[in-house]
Amino acid sequence: MTSFVSPIKYEEETLYLLDQTLLPGQEVYEPIRTKEDLWEAIYKLKVRGAPAIGVAAAWGLYVCTRELQGADFEDFFQQFHEVKEYLATSRPTAVNLFWALNRMEDKLLSMRGAAWDLEHIKQQLKEEAKCIYEEDVAACHAMGTYGLSLLKPGMGILTHCNAGTIATAKYGTCLAPLYLGQEQGYDFKVFADETRPLLQGARLTAWELDKAGMDVTLICDNMASIVMKNGWIQAVVVGCDRMAANGDGANKIGTSGVAILAREYNIPFYMFVPTSTIDLNTPTGADIHIEERKGEEVYKMWYEKPMAPDGIKTYNPAFDVTDAKYITAVVTEKSIVYPPYDVNLPKLFAEQGPASEEKA
Amino acid sequence: MTSFVSPIKYEEETLYLLDQTLLPGQEVYEPIRTKEDLWEAIYKLKVRGAPAIGVAAAWGLYVCTRELQGADFEDFFQQFHEVKEYLATSRPTAVNLFWALNRMEDKLLSMRGAAWDLEHIKQQLKEEAKCIYEEDVAACHAMGTYGLSLLKPGMGILTHCNAGTIATAKYGTCLAPLYLGQEQGYDFKVFADETRPLLQGARLTAWELDKAGMDVTLICDNMASIVMKNGWIQAVVVGCDRMAANGDGANKIGTSGVAILAREYNIPFYMFVPTSTIDLNTPTGADIHIEERKGEEVYKMWYEKPMAPDGIKTYNPAFDVTDAKYITAVVTEKSIVYPPYDVNLPKLFAEQGPASEEKA
Repeated sequence: MTSFVSPIKYEEETLYLLDQTLLPGQEVYEPIRTKEDLWEAIYKLKVRGAPAIGVAAAWGLYVCTRELQGADFEDFFQQFHEVKEYLATSRPTAVNLFWALNRMEDKLLSMRGAAWDLEHIKQQLKEEAKCIYEEDVAACHAMGTYGLSLLKPGMGILTHCNAGTIATAKYGTCLAPLYLGQEQGYDFKVFADETRPLLQGARLTAWELDKAGMDVTLICDNMASIVMKNGWIQAVVVGCDRMAANGDGANKIGTSGVAILAREYNIPFYMFVPTSTIDLNTPTGADIHIEERKGEEVYKMWYEKPMAPDGIKTYNPAFDVTDAKYITAVVTEKSIVYPPYDVNLPKLFAEQGPASEEKA
Repeated sequence: MTSFVSPIKYEEETLYLLDQTLLPGQEVYEPIRTKEDLWEAIYKLKVRGAPAIGVAAAWGLYVCTRELQGADFEDFFQQFHEVKEYLATSRPTAVNLFWALNRMEDKLLSMRGAAWDLEHIKQQLKEEAKCIYEEDVAACHAMGTYGLSLLKPGMGILTHCNAGTIATAKYGTCLAPLYLGQEQGYDFKVFADETRPLLQGARLTAWELDKAGMDVTLICDNMASIVMKNGWIQAVVVGCDRMAANGDGANKIGTSGVAILAREYNIPFYMFVPTSTIDLNTPTGADIHIEERKGEEVYKMWYEKPMAPDGIKTYNPAFDVTDAKYITAVVTEKSIVYPPYDVNLPKLFAEQGPASEEKA
């Protein structure tokens, strides 16, 4: 079994979250015992990655409410709801956070009206949190299995940013096939873009792959072209933050450039996209809003001293959109989707094949 | 007149070099009074950029030898030669350093056998140093004029690394047209890639353009794709460290990726190449050796703490080769050269047009 980390552990009735802000220097699992602990872990990005945030929130909501007492269901529900609302303020843009908190509350509400049994309720909430965790593990494992079917032993693989095991419950999205391949002796040579300005590739991807014993080489983002030209890359794997109905995919800044280089060098470019990330109500990438962040991240953060003139103008978009035409295949937990994406992505959401084809 | 810096000043009989290692935090011109001062300035990269090193070495050799006395020519020559050999050890890979030192010595040797007149000799050496300076200013100005003919007012211009005024005697190579355009009110919007790992774009290009009052925006290297896609870039200008006979050009790492993106987005890509940088004896880019540098530059240098696991494997090439097919035009101090480069580059070196055409 591959030795790799999960950022979320529930052991001996205690929840632990890997503090990713201390990576790569220190590997510290912080116990989460109170709602304040959890709020801070999410707010300070100790836990990051949409799937991981959702799973941590679900487990955390259970942990933070299991000591609550109540005279009856409504009394307990009121206290539970207050904790949930408080936790929801920890990262107001994290869709998975709300999704997970709401799913836990829905579970609780499903027991309204039943005979009052607080221990049973708490047991059911624990089961739901565990279920959310296990569903994410299963989805990542499925993406890994589909992804691995696209790769061959010995391949050189380039990745950008971190969509790895520490961004999910386990395995990761685009790094999942690398872990599954390693278990089967695939001997990949992985190249990790450092991913400026926040260096997720250096701090997180290089760390987790190195820790798992993978052959990983760290490069600056602007070296992607030369490693491809050198013939060292046979596939590119990246995650996705949001995919439009036509297959345009928003991901960490720089992804679109990597995709264009891959096409120029005739290297397949695979985007790993949980179906929860596909938004059929967004027609194209042009409809995706790109968050702009502070310029200090570019010229000041991490550095000993500022690396550009004080007050220099910057442009610091957090994401860019990779046009569907550069994406060789979209790997989801349900299947591998090939172009034309505007036809094939909607089929993922049709409950039955024939109905889907009628729609298309 | 545009307010922009020259990294080399000779004022009131004193030579001053801009200490580029202190940029962008401090702008300090250090007086060069002894051969040790000059040796250290070159060794510690206080002066950098091939043209600037050559000019600084010529002026510096004059300054360091003007107090020397001598009983006769051979006595003076021996002392001069010792200083020259000492200075040549300051940066053993800098071709322009040797070229400039040898040219100064050749000037001295041209006076061997004439009536012994030490003051006349020193005056001639001073003139030669000044001439080397002025030739570089003229070459950069010519590249600027040719380059400007390719640009239009209001254009968005992307550049990578630093081939600016502080890398030459004045104006720079690929930034020369921006300065000349600014004098004519062209109102360019310049985007500077930060240029990892050594951040020449952030520390040097953004600094010198900002100081000159240019509209400059600093971006991470991986943002070149999105600014092009946003429609903000109408031309890319870059320098060149060495060009092969077929037009393949080696330049700072990341240049080849920018060139591929530019072609994908239908943006012209101009490489600024002093003819001294064109090597017709090197058939193609594949024959250019690419220097690899220490991995610490990628994960440790500049940072408060290491940004990747200790001992992580890296690949850190200093340069990459941009294939001739991606280069819209090569701008030299003699003319603008268009494809086919294997035919048109050699014409630059033919003394007469007709002879050149016969060769082709």
